[in-house]
Amino acid sequence: MNNVTTLSNTRKVRIEWGDCDPAGIIFYPRYFEIFDASTSALFERALGLTKFQLLKTFDFAGYPLASTRARFLKPTRFGDDVTVETKVKFGRTSFAIEHRLSLHGVPCVECSETRVWVVRDPKNPARIKSHPIPGAVLAKFNAP
Amino acid sequence: MNNVTTLSNTRKVRIEWGDCDPAGIIFYPRYFEIFDASTSALFERALGLTKFQLLKTFDFAGYPLASTRARFLKPTRFGDDVTVETKVKFGRTSFAIEHRLSLHGVPCVECSETRVWVVRDPKNPARIKSHPIPGAVLAKFNAP
Amino acid sequence: MNNVTTLSNTRKVRIEWGDCDPAGIIFYPRYFEIFDASTSALFERALGLTKFQLLKTFDFAGYPLASTRARFLKPTRFGDDVTVETKVKFGRTSFAIEHRLSLHGVPCVECSETRVWVVRDPKNPARIKSHPIPGAVLAKFNAP
Amino acid sequence: MNNVTTLSNTRKVRIEWGDCDPAGIIFYPRYFEIFDASTSALFERALGLTKFQLLKTFDFAGYPLASTRARFLKPTRFGDDVTVETKVKFGRTSFAIEHRLSLHGVPCVECSETRVWVVRDPKNPARIKSHPIPGAVLAKFNAP
Repeated sequence: MNNVTTLSNTRKVRIEWGDCDPAGIIFYPRYFEIFDASTSALFERALGLTKFQLLKTFDFAGYPLASTRARFLKPTRFGDDVTVETKVKFGRTSFAIEHRLSLHGVPCVECSETRVWVVRDPKNPARIKSHPIPGAVLAKFNAP
Repeated sequence: MNNVTTLSNTRKVRIEWGDCDPAGIIFYPRYFEIFDASTSALFERALGLTKFQLLKTFDFAGYPLASTRARFLKPTRFGDDVTVETKVKFGRTSFAIEHRLSLHGVPCVECSETRVWVVRDPKNPARIKSHPIPGAVLAKFNAP
Repeated sequence: MNNVTTLSNTRKVRIEWGDCDPAGIIFYPRYFEIFDASTSALFERALGLTKFQLLKTFDFAGYPLASTRARFLKPTRFGDDVTVETKVKFGRTSFAIEHRLSLHGVPCVECSETRVWVVRDPKNPARIKSHPIPGAVLAKFNAP
Repeated sequence: MNNVTTLSNTRKVRIEWGDCDPAGIIFYPRYFEIFDASTSALFERALGLTKFQLLKTFDFAGYPLASTRARFLKPTRFGDDVTVETKVKFGRTSFAIEHRLSLHGVPCVECSETRVWVVRDPKNPARIKSHPIPGAVLAKFNAP
């Protein structure tokens, strides 16, 4: 990947009662829900468009994951207000995302994702296929 | 129920991509996740304690639902920043909650819940049983 | 509603660790996920089509809820294999669903839903609108 | 890790409407819910105990994740009946899990987890700490 940019976004997320399991700590699939929303928040910050507006504007079908990996360093629990810092590096049709989730400055989860920019397959609208990330998207991330 | 109080709380919630289904609108069980967190937010506002702190302070086991009913007036979708207004009326061992979820002032969902204050059954800690809501809790809701 | 039919379906569902909250019992929004899937299972049994096939076959956009109400009689917990019995009564553009969730014959949750058959609005494909339930669907439910 | 055993378990899972996102494919955090339940199913098969019974029998607090990684090879959608094959290799206080999720024999997701056997910290019951996996658990996995 040629690292076109590294805009980052940071947001606060409250861990809720319903995110936690009988051990009293977060049920780990909830972290991936948080990270998916954090990726959308990063795009929204750079482009000034919600994901709904983004899909309409660029006629694409989303950015599903090719892979993810996460390390769980310290459990979080309901009532915790965690901080999620999200960074992106763009390739041609895919991009790499890094999420760092921390509580009071202590790292709790580190996650790396590869996501693919996809469009509806014109030959079969029920299918999706990868597509170069539009220059207009990249330009927004590079804008000072 | 003798309506001891009516403190209310209002919060904003972003509807996320992952909350929505293939019809592009919110998958309705997500509303109940939002409402559960809204109930916790109301208690946190009144008591100055997160639910985690609340459980430690009052040695109870939560406020599970006895019943809920909801009317879905207008669908919401990802990117929507909805407003949830939550009100409570207390009884002796239970309380009634009303949630009104709206988008730009337009009502989308109305929900009424009855919740029960429960403690661990001292005879069988694996079981829970209803218990009078502590006066210290009620007092906080009545404070001006 | 003219009660065209009352086909019912019964299925077993395992309550999982991740469905439960720090009190060790199911987090109640998970029940609505179970009920939504139970409604799909009923249609699949009657029509011999998964919901995916159903949407393709009848060119509609789903059956979102107009309202739901539930009574929670007895908590369930991870490891429980609950039974969900689901019944339907059809109206013209909507239908009523009843779910009864039980454990070893003991009722745990009763839920009543009203759902609406919707199609994409031809004037605005981003919107959905109610539509008479196709006769071919009703016929399948009435078939012996 | 000294690979004490390799018992595997295979189960079928239906991808539901509510598991899918506005692109019509599964929202990837749902895979991790499926994998967590698949890990429990493997233990249940080997030990003849649900996770609820397991926690009571062995006085431990669960097996939270230290790390996970997943590759998403092919999307699945509602109505798909996927197959999940789960294998384990035990270490002293941790174990490695491999999940392979496929549809009609075609691999869709590969996931590797490291999980830690934890108990309540006797000095602070609100905390958990790692603990050697009981010999009685390992023996059951090794039984023919």
